[in-house]
Amino acid sequence: MNADKIPDIIIGRLPVYLRALQRLSDKGVHTTSSQELGEIVGISAAQIRKDISQFGEFGKQGTGYAIPFLVERLRDILKVNRVWEVVIVGIGDMGHALARYNGFTNRGFNIKMIFDNDPKKIGQKVGDFEIYDTAGMAEKIKQAKVKVAMLTVPATAAQEVADQLVKAGIKAILNYAPISLNVPAGVRVQYIDPVAHLQRMTYYLD
Amino acid sequence: MNADKIPDIIIGRLPVYLRALQRLSDKGVHTTSSQELGEIVGISAAQIRKDISQFGEFGKQGTGYAIPFLVERLRDILKVNRVWEVVIVGIGDMGHALARYNGFTNRGFNIKMIFDNDPKKIGQKVGDFEIYDTAGMAEKIKQAKVKVAMLTVPATAAQEVADQLVKAGIKAILNYAPISLNVPAGVRVQYIDPVAHLQRMTYYLD
Repeated sequence: MNADKIPDIIIGRLPVYLRALQRLSDKGVHTTSSQELGEIVGISAAQIRKDISQFGEFGKQGTGYAIPFLVERLRDILKVNRVWEVVIVGIGDMGHALARYNGFTNRGFNIKMIFDNDPKKIGQKVGDFEIYDTAGMAEKIKQAKVKVAMLTVPATAAQEVADQLVKAGIKAILNYAPISLNVPAGVRVQYIDPVAHLQRMTYYLD
Repeated sequence: MNADKIPDIIIGRLPVYLRALQRLSDKGVHTTSSQELGEIVGISAAQIRKDISQFGEFGKQGTGYAIPFLVERLRDILKVNRVWEVVIVGIGDMGHALARYNGFTNRGFNIKMIFDNDPKKIGQKVGDFEIYDTAGMAEKIKQAKVKVAMLTVPATAAQEVADQLVKAGIKAILNYAPISLNVPAGVRVQYIDPVAHLQRMTYYLD
Protein backbone atom coordinates (compact mmCIF):
# COMPACT_ATOMS: atom_id res chain seq x y z
CA MET A 1 0.00 0.00 0.00
CA ASN A 2 1.60 3.21 -1.18
CA ALA A 3 0.22 6.58 -0.08
CA ASP A 4 1.10 8.12 -3.44
CA LYS A 5 -0.80 5.56 -5.43
CA ILE A 6 -4.28 5.97 -3.96
CA PRO A 7 -6.18 8.94 -5.39
CA ASP A 8 -6.80 11.71 -2.89
CA ILE A 9 -10.49 11.66 -3.77
CA ILE A 10 -10.67 8.18 -2.22
CA ILE A 11 -8.74 9.31 0.84
CA GLY A 12 -11.28 12.11 1.17
CA ARG A 13 -14.14 9.62 1.42
CA LEU A 14 -12.52 7.49 4.15
CA PRO A 15 -13.26 10.00 6.96
CA VAL A 16 -16.91 9.97 5.84
CA TYR A 17 -17.04 6.18 6.09
CA LEU A 18 -15.25 6.26 9.43
CA ARG A 19 -17.67 8.86 10.81
CA ALA A 20 -20.69 6.78 9.78
CA LEU A 21 -19.17 3.53 11.11
CA GLN A 22 -18.32 5.13 14.45
CA ARG A 23 -21.86 6.36 14.70
CA LEU A 24 -23.25 2.89 14.01
CA SER A 25 -20.82 1.51 16.58
CA ASP A 26 -22.00 4.08 19.14
CA LYS A 27 -25.53 2.78 18.55
CA GLY A 28 -24.38 -0.75 19.34
CA VAL A 29 -24.39 -2.02 15.74
CA HIS A 30 -21.58 -4.52 15.07
CA THR A 31 -21.84 -5.37 11.38
CA THR A 32 -22.87 -3.49 8.28
CA SER A 33 -22.90 -3.89 4.51
CA SER A 34 -21.73 -1.64 1.72
CA GLN A 35 -25.44 -1.22 0.88
CA GLU A 36 -26.34 -0.01 4.37
CA LEU A 37 -23.26 2.20 4.63
CA GLY A 38 -24.01 3.56 1.16
CA GLU A 39 -27.51 4.59 2.16
CA ILE A 40 -26.15 6.39 5.22
CA VAL A 41 -23.44 8.34 3.43
CA GLY A 42 -25.10 8.77 0.06
CA ILE A 43 -22.40 6.96 -1.91
CA SER A 44 -23.02 3.85 -4.02
CA ALA A 45 -22.32 0.45 -2.48
CA ALA A 46 -20.05 -0.37 -5.43
CA GLN A 47 -17.99 2.76 -4.86
CA ILE A 48 -17.62 1.98 -1.17
CA ARG A 49 -16.50 -1.59 -1.85
CA LYS A 50 -14.01 -0.32 -4.43
CA ASP A 51 -12.66 2.38 -2.13
CA ILE A 52 -12.24 0.08 0.85
CA SER A 53 -10.73 -2.75 -1.20
CA GLN A 54 -7.81 -0.44 -2.04
CA PHE A 55 -6.55 -1.17 1.45
CA GLY A 56 -7.11 -4.93 1.61
CA GLU A 57 -9.91 -7.41 2.12
CA PHE A 58 -12.26 -6.29 4.88
CA GLY A 59 -15.68 -7.64 4.06
CA LYS A 60 -16.93 -11.13 3.31
CA GLN A 61 -19.51 -11.82 0.64
CA GLY A 62 -22.79 -12.28 2.46
CA THR A 63 -21.63 -11.32 5.94
CA GLY A 64 -20.59 -7.73 5.32
CA TYR A 65 -18.16 -5.67 7.35
CA ALA A 66 -17.29 -6.19 11.02
CA ILE A 67 -17.63 -2.60 12.23
CA PRO A 68 -15.08 -2.59 15.08
CA PHE A 69 -12.44 -4.10 12.80
CA LEU A 70 -13.14 -1.73 9.91
CA VAL A 71 -13.17 1.27 12.28
CA GLU A 72 -9.76 0.27 13.60
CA ARG A 73 -8.35 -0.23 10.12
CA LEU A 74 -9.67 3.14 8.91
CA ARG A 75 -8.24 4.81 11.99
CA ASP A 76 -4.90 3.16 11.22
CA ILE A 77 -5.00 4.20 7.56
CA LEU A 78 -5.94 7.80 8.35
CA LYS A 79 -3.41 7.82 11.21
CA VAL A 80 -5.98 8.90 13.76
CA ASN A 81 -5.24 5.91 15.97
CA ARG A 82 -3.05 8.49 17.68
CA VAL A 83 -3.87 12.03 18.83
CA TRP A 84 -2.62 14.94 16.73
CA GLU A 85 -2.02 18.23 18.45
CA VAL A 86 -3.46 21.23 16.64
CA VAL A 87 -3.02 24.98 16.91
CA ILE A 88 -5.65 27.56 16.06
CA VAL A 89 -4.47 30.88 14.65
CA GLY A 90 -6.96 33.75 14.69
CA ILE A 91 -9.49 33.97 17.49
CA GLY A 92 -12.46 35.70 15.89
CA ASP A 93 -15.93 34.14 15.92
CA MET A 94 -14.79 31.08 13.97
CA GLY A 95 -11.64 30.55 16.02
CA HIS A 96 -13.75 30.80 19.17
CA ALA A 97 -16.21 28.24 17.86
CA LEU A 98 -13.40 25.82 16.99
CA ALA A 99 -11.58 26.33 20.30
CA ARG A 100 -14.79 25.42 22.12
CA TYR A 101 -15.84 22.57 19.79
CA ASN A 102 -15.84 19.26 21.65
CA GLY A 103 -15.88 17.02 18.59
CA PHE A 104 -12.12 16.86 17.98
CA THR A 105 -10.79 14.73 20.81
CA ASN A 106 -12.47 11.42 20.12
CA ARG A 107 -11.66 11.64 16.43
CA GLY A 108 -7.89 12.05 16.68
CA PHE A 109 -7.24 15.72 17.41
CA ASN A 110 -6.47 17.81 20.43
CA ILE A 111 -6.29 21.60 20.49
CA LYS A 112 -2.88 22.46 21.93
CA MET A 113 -2.52 26.25 21.65
CA ILE A 114 -4.38 29.23 20.25
CA PHE A 115 -2.91 32.44 18.85
CA ASP A 116 -3.98 35.92 17.87
CA ASN A 117 -2.16 39.17 17.13
CA ASP A 118 -4.71 41.50 18.74
CA PRO A 119 -3.25 43.03 21.94
CA LYS A 120 -6.76 43.16 23.39
CA LYS A 121 -7.13 39.39 22.99
CA ILE A 122 -3.62 38.20 23.93
CA GLY A 123 -3.63 36.84 27.48
CA GLN A 124 -7.41 36.44 27.52
CA LYS A 125 -8.91 32.98 27.85
CA VAL A 126 -11.13 30.97 25.52
CA GLY A 127 -12.37 27.92 27.37
CA ASP A 128 -9.25 26.42 28.92
CA PHE A 129 -6.86 28.17 26.57
CA GLU A 130 -4.91 31.35 27.03
CA ILE A 131 -4.61 33.30 23.79
CA TYR A 132 -0.90 33.59 22.90
CA ASP A 133 0.72 36.30 20.85
CA THR A 134 1.43 35.29 17.24
CA ALA A 135 4.79 37.02 17.68
CA GLY A 136 6.05 33.98 19.60
CA MET A 137 4.07 31.47 17.58
CA ALA A 138 6.81 29.90 15.43
CA GLU A 139 8.99 29.17 18.45
CA LYS A 140 6.13 27.64 20.46
CA ILE A 141 5.00 25.45 17.54
CA LYS A 142 8.54 24.23 16.90
CA GLN A 143 9.11 23.39 20.56
CA ALA A 144 5.84 21.48 20.83
CA LYS A 145 6.46 19.82 17.42
CA VAL A 146 2.89 20.53 16.34
CA LYS A 147 2.21 19.55 12.71
CA VAL A 148 -1.42 20.58 12.22
CA ALA A 149 -2.96 24.07 12.23
CA MET A 150 -6.39 25.60 11.74
CA LEU A 151 -6.19 29.03 10.18
CA THR A 152 -9.04 31.40 11.00
CA VAL A 153 -7.47 34.79 10.29
CA PRO A 154 -8.86 37.34 7.79
CA ALA A 155 -8.18 36.63 4.12
CA THR A 156 -5.75 39.54 3.91
CA ALA A 157 -3.47 37.97 6.55
CA ALA A 158 -3.88 34.29 5.66
CA GLN A 159 -0.95 33.83 3.26
CA GLU A 160 1.52 35.59 5.55
CA VAL A 161 0.44 33.54 8.55
CA ALA A 162 0.52 30.35 6.47
CA ASP A 163 4.13 31.15 5.53
CA GLN A 164 5.01 31.48 9.22
CA LEU A 165 3.27 28.20 10.03
CA VAL A 166 5.17 26.37 7.29
CA LYS A 167 8.48 27.75 8.58
CA ALA A 168 7.52 26.55 12.07
CA GLY A 169 7.12 22.99 10.79
CA ILE A 170 3.36 22.79 10.23
CA LYS A 171 2.54 20.16 7.58
CA ALA A 172 -1.26 20.35 7.41
CA ILE A 173 -3.37 23.52 7.37
CA LEU A 174 -7.14 23.66 7.59
CA ASN A 175 -7.82 27.06 6.07
CA TYR A 176 -11.01 28.96 6.89
CA ALA A 177 -9.93 32.14 5.11
CA PRO A 178 -11.66 32.41 1.72
CA ILE A 179 -8.44 32.44 -0.32
CA SER A 180 -6.26 29.75 -1.85
CA LEU A 181 -2.91 29.41 -0.07
CA ASN A 182 0.47 28.82 -1.69
CA VAL A 183 2.47 26.27 0.27
CA PRO A 184 5.53 24.21 -0.61
CA ALA A 185 5.36 20.55 -1.60
CA GLY A 186 4.97 18.36 1.47
CA VAL A 187 2.52 20.73 3.14
CA ARG A 188 -1.17 19.97 2.69
CA VAL A 189 -4.04 22.45 2.77
CA GLN A 190 -7.73 21.77 3.07
CA TYR A 191 -10.30 24.53 2.70
CA ILE A 192 -13.48 25.27 4.56
CA ASP A 193 -15.43 27.94 2.75
CA PRO A 194 -19.17 27.74 3.41
CA VAL A 195 -19.94 29.98 0.45
CA ALA A 196 -18.18 27.63 -1.97
CA HIS A 197 -20.35 24.78 -0.67
CA LEU A 198 -23.49 26.89 -0.97
CA GLN A 199 -22.59 27.86 -4.54
CA ARG A 200 -22.04 24.21 -5.42
CA MET A 201 -25.68 23.62 -4.44
CA THR A 202 -27.33 26.69 -5.97
CA TYR A 203 -26.06 25.50 -9.35
CA TYR A 204 -28.79 22.84 -9.14
CA LEU A 205 -31.58 25.11 -7.88
CA ASP A 206 -34.17 26.95 -9.97
CA MET B 1 -25.82 22.83 -21.45
CA ASN B 2 -27.59 20.34 -19.24
CA ALA B 3 -27.13 20.48 -15.47
CA ASP B 4 -27.36 16.70 -15.22
CA LYS B 5 -24.57 16.09 -17.68
CA ILE B 6 -21.72 17.93 -15.97
CA PRO B 7 -20.08 15.95 -13.16
CA ASP B 8 -20.65 17.42 -9.73
CA ILE B 9 -16.90 17.30 -9.08
CA ILE B 10 -16.49 19.95 -11.80
CA ILE B 11 -19.33 22.03 -10.37
CA GLY B 12 -17.50 21.84 -7.03
CA ARG B 13 -14.40 23.46 -8.51
CA LEU B 14 -16.24 26.39 -10.10
CA PRO B 15 -16.73 28.26 -6.79
CA VAL B 16 -12.98 27.91 -6.21
CA TYR B 17 -12.22 29.45 -9.60
CA LEU B 18 -14.81 32.18 -9.01
CA ARG B 19 -13.34 33.02 -5.59
CA ALA B 20 -9.83 33.34 -7.04
CA LEU B 21 -11.01 35.37 -10.03
CA GLN B 22 -12.98 37.77 -7.84
CA ARG B 23 -9.89 38.21 -5.70
CA LEU B 24 -7.78 39.02 -8.76
CA SER B 25 -10.49 41.41 -9.90
CA ASP B 26 -10.50 43.13 -6.48
CA LYS B 27 -6.77 43.67 -6.94
CA GLY B 28 -7.42 45.40 -10.27
CA VAL B 29 -6.26 42.51 -12.49
CA HIS B 30 -8.28 42.23 -15.70
CA THR B 31 -6.93 39.18 -17.49
CA THR B 32 -5.52 35.86 -16.40
CA SER B 33 -4.44 32.53 -17.86
CA SER B 34 -5.24 28.97 -16.88
CA GLN B 35 -1.58 28.73 -15.79
CA GLU B 36 -1.84 31.69 -13.43
CA LEU B 37 -5.23 30.62 -12.11
CA GLY B 38 -3.89 27.09 -11.66
CA GLU B 39 -1.01 28.31 -9.53
CA ILE B 40 -3.39 30.28 -7.33
CA VAL B 41 -5.87 27.47 -6.75
CA GLY B 42 -3.49 24.51 -6.90
CA ILE B 43 -5.22 22.81 -9.83
CA SER B 44 -3.53 22.04 -13.16
CA ALA B 45 -4.00 24.49 -16.02
CA ALA B 46 -5.21 21.63 -18.22
CA GLN B 47 -7.90 20.71 -15.70
CA ILE B 48 -9.04 24.32 -15.43
CA ARG B 49 -9.29 24.69 -19.21
CA LYS B 50 -11.22 21.43 -19.43
CA ASP B 51 -13.60 22.39 -16.61
CA ILE B 52 -14.33 25.84 -17.97
CA SER B 53 -14.71 24.63 -21.57
CA GLN B 54 -17.70 22.53 -20.42
CA PHE B 55 -19.66 25.75 -20.39
CA GLY B 56 -18.50 27.27 -23.67
CA GLU B 57 -15.55 29.13 -25.10
CA PHE B 58 -14.22 31.72 -22.67
CA GLY B 59 -10.52 32.06 -23.29
CA LYS B 60 -8.52 32.81 -26.39
CA GLN B 61 -5.27 31.07 -27.19
CA GLY B 62 -2.53 33.49 -26.24
CA THR B 63 -4.68 36.15 -24.62
CA GLY B 64 -6.15 34.15 -21.74
CA TYR B 65 -9.36 34.88 -19.89
CA ALA B 66 -11.02 38.27 -19.51
CA ILE B 67 -11.66 38.22 -15.75
CA PRO B 68 -14.82 40.36 -15.59
CA PHE B 69 -16.45 38.30 -18.31
CA LEU B 70 -15.48 34.95 -16.77
CA VAL B 71 -16.61 36.13 -13.32
CA GLU B 72 -20.00 37.06 -14.75
CA ARG B 73 -20.35 33.75 -16.57
CA LEU B 74 -19.40 31.73 -13.47
CA ARG B 75 -21.86 33.74 -11.39
CA ASP B 76 -24.53 32.97 -14.01
CA ILE B 77 -23.67 29.26 -14.07
CA LEU B 78 -23.64 28.95 -10.28
CA LYS B 79 -26.79 31.10 -10.08
CA VAL B 80 -25.21 33.57 -7.69
CA ASN B 81 -25.93 36.49 -10.01
CA ARG B 82 -28.92 36.78 -7.68
CA VAL B 83 -29.07 36.81 -3.88
CA TRP B 84 -30.25 33.64 -2.11
CA GLU B 85 -31.87 33.98 1.26
CA VAL B 86 -30.58 31.57 3.86
CA VAL B 87 -31.75 30.47 7.29
CA ILE B 88 -29.49 29.28 10.10
CA VAL B 89 -30.87 26.63 12.45
CA GLY B 90 -29.03 26.14 15.73
CA ILE B 91 -27.39 29.12 17.40
CA GLY B 92 -24.47 27.60 19.29
CA ASP B 93 -20.91 28.78 18.75
CA MET B 94 -20.93 27.82 15.07
CA GLY B 95 -24.36 29.31 14.38
CA HIS B 96 -23.21 32.53 16.05
CA ALA B 97 -20.06 32.63 13.94
CA LEU B 98 -22.06 32.14 10.74
CA ALA B 99 -24.73 34.69 11.72
CA ARG B 100 -21.98 37.27 12.21
CA TYR B 101 -19.87 36.29 9.18
CA ASN B 102 -19.74 39.12 6.68
CA GLY B 103 -18.53 37.08 3.72
CA PHE B 104 -21.89 35.88 2.44
CA THR B 105 -23.50 38.97 0.96
CA ASN B 106 -21.13 39.78 -1.88
CA ARG B 107 -20.99 36.13 -2.94
CA GLY B 108 -24.70 35.54 -3.45
CA PHE B 109 -26.18 34.84 -0.01
CA ASN B 110 -28.07 36.78 2.59
CA ILE B 111 -28.94 35.51 6.05
CA LYS B 112 -32.70 35.93 6.39
CA MET B 113 -33.66 34.31 9.71
CA ILE B 114 -32.08 32.34 12.53
CA PHE B 115 -33.72 29.69 14.70
CA ASP B 116 -33.08 27.78 17.90
CA ASN B 117 -35.22 25.67 20.21
CA ASP B 118 -33.63 26.83 23.48
CA PRO B 119 -36.13 28.99 25.45
CA LYS B 120 -33.18 30.92 26.89
CA LYS B 121 -32.04 31.91 23.39
CA ILE B 122 -35.39 32.52 21.67
CA GLY B 123 -36.05 36.26 21.45
CA GLN B 124 -32.38 37.14 22.07
CA LYS B 125 -30.41 38.89 19.35
CA VAL B 126 -27.34 37.83 17.39
CA GLY B 127 -26.10 40.82 15.42
CA ASP B 128 -29.17 42.19 13.70
CA PHE B 129 -31.15 38.98 14.02
CA GLU B 130 -33.70 37.97 16.57
CA ILE B 131 -33.51 34.26 17.35
CA TYR B 132 -36.85 32.68 16.43
CA ASP B 133 -38.37 29.54 17.92
CA THR B 134 -37.92 26.44 15.75
CA ALA B 135 -41.55 25.63 16.61
CA GLY B 136 -42.67 28.21 14.04
CA MET B 137 -39.82 27.56 11.64
CA ALA B 138 -41.57 25.62 8.89
CA GLU B 139 -44.29 28.24 8.53
CA LYS B 140 -41.82 31.14 8.44
CA ILE B 141 -39.60 29.41 5.85
CA LYS B 142 -42.58 28.58 3.63
CA GLN B 143 -43.90 32.14 3.79
CA ALA B 144 -40.53 33.63 2.94
CA LYS B 145 -39.94 30.95 0.26
CA VAL B 146 -36.39 30.36 1.51
CA LYS B 147 -34.66 27.49 -0.27
CA VAL B 148 -31.26 27.35 1.47
CA ALA B 149 -30.44 26.46 5.09
CA MET B 150 -27.34 26.11 7.23
CA LEU B 151 -27.75 23.45 9.87
CA THR B 152 -25.69 23.92 13.04
CA VAL B 153 -27.62 21.82 15.54
CA PRO B 154 -26.13 18.91 17.52
CA ALA B 155 -25.69 15.62 15.65
CA THR B 156 -28.49 14.00 17.63
CA ALA B 157 -31.03 16.58 16.37
CA ALA B 158 -29.75 17.07 12.83
CA GLN B 159 -31.82 14.48 10.95
CA GLU B 160 -35.08 15.54 12.61
CA VAL B 161 -34.45 19.21 11.87
CA ALA B 162 -33.41 18.36 8.31
CA ASP B 163 -36.74 16.56 7.83
CA GLN B 164 -38.58 19.69 9.01
CA LEU B 165 -36.54 21.87 6.66
CA VAL B 166 -37.29 19.62 3.70
CA LYS B 167 -41.01 19.73 4.49
CA ALA B 168 -40.78 23.52 4.65
CA GLY B 169 -39.42 23.63 1.09
CA ILE B 170 -35.67 23.88 1.71
CA LYS B 171 -33.74 22.49 -1.28
CA ALA B 172 -30.13 22.97 -0.18
CA ILE B 173 -28.70 22.23 3.27
CA LEU B 174 -25.21 23.08 4.43
CA ASN B 175 -24.80 20.62 7.29
CA TYR B 176 -22.32 21.33 10.09
CA ALA B 177 -23.47 18.40 12.22
CA PRO B 178 -21.03 15.48 11.93
CA ILE B 179 -23.55 13.02 10.54
CA SER B 180 -24.74 12.12 7.06
CA LEU B 181 -28.31 13.27 6.39
CA ASN B 182 -30.99 11.36 4.53
CA VAL B 183 -32.92 13.68 2.24
CA PRO B 184 -35.23 13.01 -0.69
CA ALA B 185 -34.15 13.37 -4.31
CA GLY B 186 -34.16 17.01 -5.34
CA VAL B 187 -32.69 18.20 -2.04
CA ARG B 188 -28.94 18.73 -1.93
CA VAL B 189 -26.69 18.49 1.11
CA GLN B 190 -23.12 19.66 1.53
CA TYR B 191 -21.11 18.85 4.61
CA ILE B 192 -18.71 20.90 6.66
CA ASP B 193 -16.87 18.67 9.09
CA PRO B 194 -13.45 20.04 10.08
CA VAL B 195 -12.38 16.67 11.47
CA ALA B 196 -13.00 14.92 8.15
CA HIS B 197 -10.76 17.50 6.46
CA LEU B 198 -8.09 17.07 9.12
CA GLN B 199 -8.19 13.28 8.73
CA ARG B 200 -7.83 13.62 4.97
CA MET B 201 -4.52 15.38 5.65
CA THR B 202 -3.12 13.22 8.48
CA TYR B 203 -3.24 10.27 6.07
CA TYR B 204 -0.23 11.87 4.38
CA LEU B 205 1.69 12.78 7.54
CA ASP B 206 4.33 10.69 9.28
